[in-house]
Amino acid sequence: METAKPRSPLETPRAVVHLGLREVADGARAARVPVTEVDFQPPAGGDPVRLRALAALGEGATAEAIEAANRLALERFLRVQPHLVGVGLARDEIPGMAEDLFLHAGPPLSWERMSGPMRGAVLGGLLLEGKARDPEEAARQAARGAVRFEPCHHHQSVGPMAGLVTPSMPVWILEDRGPDGAGRRTFCTLNEGLGKVLRYGAYAPEVLERLRWMASELAPALAAALAARGPVDLKSLMAQALQMGDEGHNRNRAGTSLLFRELAPALCRSGKGAESTARVLEFIHRNDHFFLNLTMPMAKMMLMATEGIPRSSSVSVMSRNGTDFGVQLASLPGRWFVAPAQPVRGLYFPGFKEADANPDIGDSAITETAGFGGFCMAAAPAIVQFVGGSPEDALETSRRMGEITVGRNATFAIPPLGFAGAPTLIDIRKVIELVRLPTINTGIAHREPGVGQVGAGLVNPPWECFHRALEAFVEHARGA
Amino acid sequence: METAKPRSPLETPRAVVHLGLREVADGARAARVPVTEVDFQPPAGGDPVRLRALAALGEGATAEAIEAANRLALERFLRVQPHLVGVGLARDEIPGMAEDLFLHAGPPLSWERMSGPMRGAVLGGLLLEGKARDPEEAARQAARGAVRFEPCHHHQSVGPMAGLVTPSMPVWILEDRGPDGAGRRTFCTLNEGLGKVLRYGAYAPEVLERLRWMASELAPALAAALAARGPVDLKSLMAQALQMGDEGHNRNRAGTSLLFRELAPALCRSGKGAESTARVLEFIHRNDHFFLNLTMPMAKMMLMATEGIPRSSSVSVMSRNGTDFGVQLASLPGRWFVAPAQPVRGLYFPGFKEADANPDIGDSAITETAGFGGFCMAAAPAIVQFVGGSPEDALETSRRMGEITVGRNATFAIPPLGFAGAPTLIDIRKVIELVRLPTINTGIAHREPGVGQVGAGLVNPPWECFHRALEAFVEHARGA
Repeated sequence: METAKPRSPLETPRAVVHLGLREVADGARAARVPVTEVDFQPPAGGDPVRLRALAALGEGATAEAIEAANRLALERFLRVQPHLVGVGLARDEIPGMAEDLFLHAGPPLSWERMSGPMRGAVLGGLLLEGKARDPEEAARQAARGAVRFEPCHHHQSVGPMAGLVTPSMPVWILEDRGPDGAGRRTFCTLNEGLGKVLRYGAYAPEVLERLRWMASELAPALAAALAARGPVDLKSLMAQALQMGDEGHNRNRAGTSLLFRELAPALCRSGKGAESTARVLEFIHRNDHFFLNLTMPMAKMMLMATEGIPRSSSVSVMSRNGTDFGVQLASLPGRWFVAPAQPVRGLYFPGFKEADANPDIGDSAITETAGFGGFCMAAAPAIVQFVGGSPEDALETSRRMGEITVGRNATFAIPPLGFAGAPTLIDIRKVIELVRLPTINTGIAHREPGVGQVGAGLVNPPWECFHRALEAFVEHARGA
Repeated sequence: METAKPRSPLETPRAVVHLGLREVADGARAARVPVTEVDFQPPAGGDPVRLRALAALGEGATAEAIEAANRLALERFLRVQPHLVGVGLARDEIPGMAEDLFLHAGPPLSWERMSGPMRGAVLGGLLLEGKARDPEEAARQAARGAVRFEPCHHHQSVGPMAGLVTPSMPVWILEDRGPDGAGRRTFCTLNEGLGKVLRYGAYAPEVLERLRWMASELAPALAAALAARGPVDLKSLMAQALQMGDEGHNRNRAGTSLLFRELAPALCRSGKGAESTARVLEFIHRNDHFFLNLTMPMAKMMLMATEGIPRSSSVSVMSRNGTDFGVQLASLPGRWFVAPAQPVRGLYFPGFKEADANPDIGDSAITETAGFGGFCMAAAPAIVQFVGGSPEDALETSRRMGEITVGRNATFAIPPLGFAGAPTLIDIRKVIELVRLPTINTGIAHREPGVGQVGAGLVNPPWECFHRALEAFVEHARGA
């Protein structure tokens, strides 16, 4: 019990230790008092609405129910065993696919609101499917509703960047071989490579020609190889790739190499002939992102296992369509919390600059939602040469993401962090309380249709997605 | 000029800050005086002989000449461009190879002084070459001099562990495509894989059968693929592998994967048939150390470029034959400084213990001599699960090795150290002055012939090699 005489506020203190808003200490600074700043955020940034929401979620029985739900979500997530089982056509494999349906990345979106790269991909898709003879006709067809648009996420699918899936495209088929899998499947197109590609909004003749070759030579060879070899355990490949400098979103050289090794002998034995097999191998060899289109549906499959768990505060989807960013919660499956997509901070290819960039686009943020990508940046120090920053920043990002997640995935160990597991399942309560958004590694598309990739970098979801999701979650958690 | 009254040595001091031999401060500790220990070694550990030698080398003109020679050594080392150009038979490709000659790892060694694993490899070699029908006859042949033994290093070659090269074995052919290369070549056998293998001293029938298959199916396929594809730039592969968690000695999963990708399409086109090509690919796929037998001759080639530079204090060879450890200096090429090989500190496979281990063996320390392996451990944090220690230890090892080297190799960047180049060319003066031996990552062979690998770990060269080399270098540097 201190009883010292209160000090006059007008006496000059010898020093100030300051926590919180920088401006508050400006007076002290102006008075030339030494100020030591401590990196501190008041919970929820001191926002009264969010503080009330967090307080409501923190009440005894509610808090316990949320914790139990999150533990269950993590358990189910970790029990998923994604295996690559085959390659087929979107029209034959994806549930609910139809001849007049195009799937796209992110939350629902009309032609009118589509960004340049998304429109470019749709034009390419219409040309590829023979629904138009030239880009102008394709644009007219799109505008008058010749095809319907639905999110990949509504069809157990995911796609990088524009994420366009049309009926004739080949897709990877993944199956959950875990104890609760019950044959759950997810899907993703095959990665086209770098340069001018449909997923970045390019639709030039060589783009379509490549897509046709992928359907006619690449996909049948892969399908034959997988049928002969049997399923590939993707979790094991991903675990190894994390020990080899990948993070599974913007760096996939190791995963691509390991997959290549797994498939090459079976490709040789596929009966497609030496020259065709060599072309297939060369195509994969030239594209270090080939494995991305497997890390994404693997992540989607693991997160699907968390969907429908009442009162779980974990995030089950983060996704962008180039116009909007959308978030879903495990406890409120199918419900999108949407806000405008953000610009990406990053490094640009020679000849391009920030003004050329489209806002954030693609389903690939499903990797961060599942705890790899940006969350595993510490495992991939070399990635900073591509997205910017230093290896120390990469370590720090993984540490910070570990403070907004439900738990860790011991199978996905991060060597530079003493083999700590990947920070896994974003807890919306922690995002709000710590005022800390998920960090996403991503590519940057040109804002005009038909151009392609212009760089790579880091991006955060917009705060509004999380604020809206919190509001709905409070209602759900207290009412459920 | 302090003139304070000298304090009585009997007065109790308030605290002691201690640098140097731990025992010196024992008196203070016994008197319960707080002792703060500082990690400090007096130069050359205070040894008067070594201090005199270093002083002699530190004199004006001599010191300048040494610095200039080391700069030249580093320049020449960095200009080497090792390319994989082909595969042939040892008898046809290795200079000075003969039908009655077996090459082995490390400095020169007679049958009488050979350790268990080296003897086991020799027995296997005699059986493989048809010079004996069973191990007993092979032992008699070896004892009565049916073949001569010479170091791989005397024939532009290197070999892991026993490093045995017999005339009918296939070898990788590397060529220097750099500006001063003048067609310089180095050689190494193909890596047999894990388990029971000749290089660890096993000579069972399945070991010999595998070696025969490697000569009859693997090597011709690789030769045909390389002939069709053209040379593979090994420096580029190694630089990528360091960004993918390899260190190029005891972890080679990335290098093996990248080489696999480079060769697979050409293997398909080699005309050897789908089934044969698939077997070749499966063999490489099953062995993550396949690339080791390329990092070693690459290292040898780069170091050969430093040989014969007068007054360079850099080390050009470190190598072990299982009995002795040998060191060579760039300025005194061909001259071995030899002392007994040391035990390896490491992790043992289940069922094995330290007492089973042979002393340090193999030419693979050529990787550390060239600045990768243990010197690049920071790039390969996952390796600590294999050799022991923590990822922090791996970082610290690379930092400490950076203090005993002439310079850095910017091409071999280490991401976790802020992309610092690999510490390159060991400076014998710094080893002596800092009392710091090179750290070598290595496998551990069973001490009996016929068993194989029992673990992996870390080892240092014996001090005597460096003390003897210093003595000779002083004579050379002052006399030259």
